[in-house]
Amino acid sequence: MIKARVTVTLKNGVLDPQGKAIEGALGSLGFDGVHQVRQGKVFDLELDTSDRAKAEEELKAMCEKLLANTVIENYSISLA
Amino acid sequence: MIKARVTVTLKNGVLDPQGKAIEGALGSLGFDGVHQVRQGKVFDLELDTSDRAKAEEELKAMCEKLLANTVIENYSISLA
Repeated sequence: MIKARVTVTLKNGVLDPQGKAIEGALGSLGFDGVHQVRQGKVFDLELDTSDRAKAEEELKAMCEKLLANTVIENYSISLA
Repeated sequence: MIKARVTVTLKNGVLDPQGKAIEGALGSLGFDGVHQVRQGKVFDLELDTSDRAKAEEELKAMCEKLLANTVIENYSISLA
């Protein structure tokens, strides 16, 4: 069994209104000097295999098909 | 200027219907043997400071006040 974490973030240049809203909220809470806030997603999952290479390949396919919208998002995979 | 990443995940025991839905969707796409899917959030931000200790302290305060709901979520902070 392999634990993995997939992190999906917006590509550079893609507008992130949610990040902007968080930046504004942080500012109004008194946190000054915070810039470039971008929000992404993280998926933690467990795979029924002990073959790390196979797991990585399968995770990549999951990202391409479901977890990330590769037009506007990047993903990174890390195995525990 | 310090770049930081804050990762917010659901605490163990907190139900994650979104994660369950993703697990189901992966299954119906033919990805078998995927379990314990949990979705979290990630925030990338830049701080106008070069004092890493102060940055970490400030990020902790941001998590407590805005970025995470500490009743049901854990957070972790990493500085680039």
